[in-house]
Amino acid sequence: MNIKTSTAGIIGSGSWATAIAKMLLENVGQINWFFRKTETIESFKELGYNPRYLQSVEFETERINFYNDVDEIVHDSDIIVLAVPSAFLPEILSGLKSDLSTKYFLSGIKGIVTHENLLVVEYLNKYFNVPYENVGVIAGPSHAEEVALEKLSYLTVANIDEPKAARFARLIESSYIFTSTSDDIWGTEYTSVMKNIIAIGAGIAHGLRYGDNFQAVLVSNAIREMKRFVDAVHPITRDIKDSAYLGDLLVTVYSQFSRNRLLGTLIGRGYSVRNAFLDMNMVAEGYYASKSIHEINQNYNVDMPVCEMVHSILYENQQAKKAMIRLTEKLS
Amino acid sequence: MNIKTSTAGIIGSGSWATAIAKMLLENVGQINWFFRKTETIESFKELGYNPRYLQSVEFETERINFYNDVDEIVHDSDIIVLAVPSAFLPEILSGLKSDLSTKYFLSGIKGIVTHENLLVVEYLNKYFNVPYENVGVIAGPSHAEEVALEKLSYLTVANIDEPKAARFARLIESSYIFTSTSDDIWGTEYTSVMKNIIAIGAGIAHGLRYGDNFQAVLVSNAIREMKRFVDAVHPITRDIKDSAYLGDLLVTVYSQFSRNRLLGTLIGRGYSVRNAFLDMNMVAEGYYASKSIHEINQNYNVDMPVCEMVHSILYENQQAKKAMIRLTEKLS
Repeated sequence: MNIKTSTAGIIGSGSWATAIAKMLLENVGQINWFFRKTETIESFKELGYNPRYLQSVEFETERINFYNDVDEIVHDSDIIVLAVPSAFLPEILSGLKSDLSTKYFLSGIKGIVTHENLLVVEYLNKYFNVPYENVGVIAGPSHAEEVALEKLSYLTVANIDEPKAARFARLIESSYIFTSTSDDIWGTEYTSVMKNIIAIGAGIAHGLRYGDNFQAVLVSNAIREMKRFVDAVHPITRDIKDSAYLGDLLVTVYSQFSRNRLLGTLIGRGYSVRNAFLDMNMVAEGYYASKSIHEINQNYNVDMPVCEMVHSILYENQQAKKAMIRLTEKLS
Repeated sequence: MNIKTSTAGIIGSGSWATAIAKMLLENVGQINWFFRKTETIESFKELGYNPRYLQSVEFETERINFYNDVDEIVHDSDIIVLAVPSAFLPEILSGLKSDLSTKYFLSGIKGIVTHENLLVVEYLNKYFNVPYENVGVIAGPSHAEEVALEKLSYLTVANIDEPKAARFARLIESSYIFTSTSDDIWGTEYTSVMKNIIAIGAGIAHGLRYGDNFQAVLVSNAIREMKRFVDAVHPITRDIKDSAYLGDLLVTVYSQFSRNRLLGTLIGRGYSVRNAFLDMNMVAEGYYASKSIHEINQNYNVDMPVCEMVHSILYENQQAKKAMIRLTEKLS
């Protein structure tokens, strides 16, 4: 893969997809970009920005080849950039005519393909014969809104073969995106998934009027819990305090804008899970992640009090207040 | 030491001292409490609360023996509770007639006795022959304001002999104060000092308009830096992700009310260090801590880019903007 001669095609049109498009265009002349609706493409061309997300980011639209057909963008792209909610991935990729096994993938997805609890890289490998070494995973603390504002961010690109990660990293690095590499695709993916569950837990605590002292304890217990889990699932030497793991957790848990935290806050305030979703009118990845991680952990039996507290409220009908009191006795 | 038969005397009258008084009175019938000014004592008795700090906390004043003479309170108390800025400690203790070597100490001080860069426990031992095992150190994420509101907090009490830490812990635990113990007096003291330096650094970044993605990277680098330092100074097995270390860092760095963070923010906005202090009209412990940790590290040469950045701005006349840019190249 040579980024100067390869063509990248983005599947996804939300704020993270838009931020990635901005990052890519710092390094390549042209990108391909898929949108579901032709109206969105028309608006984008007319306005010069994504009409629905990160409107402050202006694009030279002549540098974007817009697509409305997934098969076409996949056919025309060497590197497929995935930036859709993980729940939508099977629907988007199934039925494709192109052979994905010869493509490179850069995944910006933070989530699990739920029906089999597979990480994106596992899913691509199992169903489309994509070699693991052809998939790069973007990790690290990365509010898309701050990328839009060109605020300095540090991203980690993981690939099972670390030198290859560096080649993917070159696609997104710039004066405001510093990159590092990792060979820990499992650790980075799982922690990026778990952080959303923890953010729901932090939101629940906030909603129940626990204070900042308690939040700090919750987070320091949570990072230990994340380490136990990823060390059990994929035992390699890693420093969980690296930005790709701890940094990503912090930016999510302490964000006032996290959807996952908001979901938790509403639940803590007394909303039922169903009504919280209705009130938010959007999806929180941590909701699905909670179920997946709980199921995966059936095989490992890692002690995960924070994730289990969230799961018990979301899926086992436990009362938030009581579940949180039980949790407080397990923290230290 | 038997907490039921021992008398505790608090030296200090700020918000943390007041929070500790509240915690003690959950466990003992009477406390001794020293105030510099008799007027403060009079107001306290009249109002039923500390007139200057945590006014929301109402005390049964008949359970407090007020003192205006340090020698007297020390004489009358078995356990001396220290909760003053570390800079004031030598002035308060020097010239005492009582023999301190027979007393127990519970230290709520987060700072270094600057003129010799000694931790409180080292200072008490060196100058007053207080045995290390007679000193308990309170650590952990603990905004006094939240203790006042009885928001659940987790405190760690450290003693060189861990079973003795449990006896000190019994003095402060309650339905809203969960305690754990540690034998790591150096690690807990040094990290509680360093976190204030990191908070200044986080404030500088904020003042210079770096975003939340960057803050998360700064904090995950900082906790690794803290680990390197305490492992060099006092090499024992510890998990820096415990609440006493990481939790304390988080609650300080992410607090909107931290004086240290405010000092940094003003400097990041362009104030000189001197004018920032004038504008704040109060002391930030991290300012003194920065000098002490820098000097102590002359013996260890630990790589501490975040603390060194702060030191270079506070004491070496470096421009904040440039020092921060240099730092960004060292983080990962």
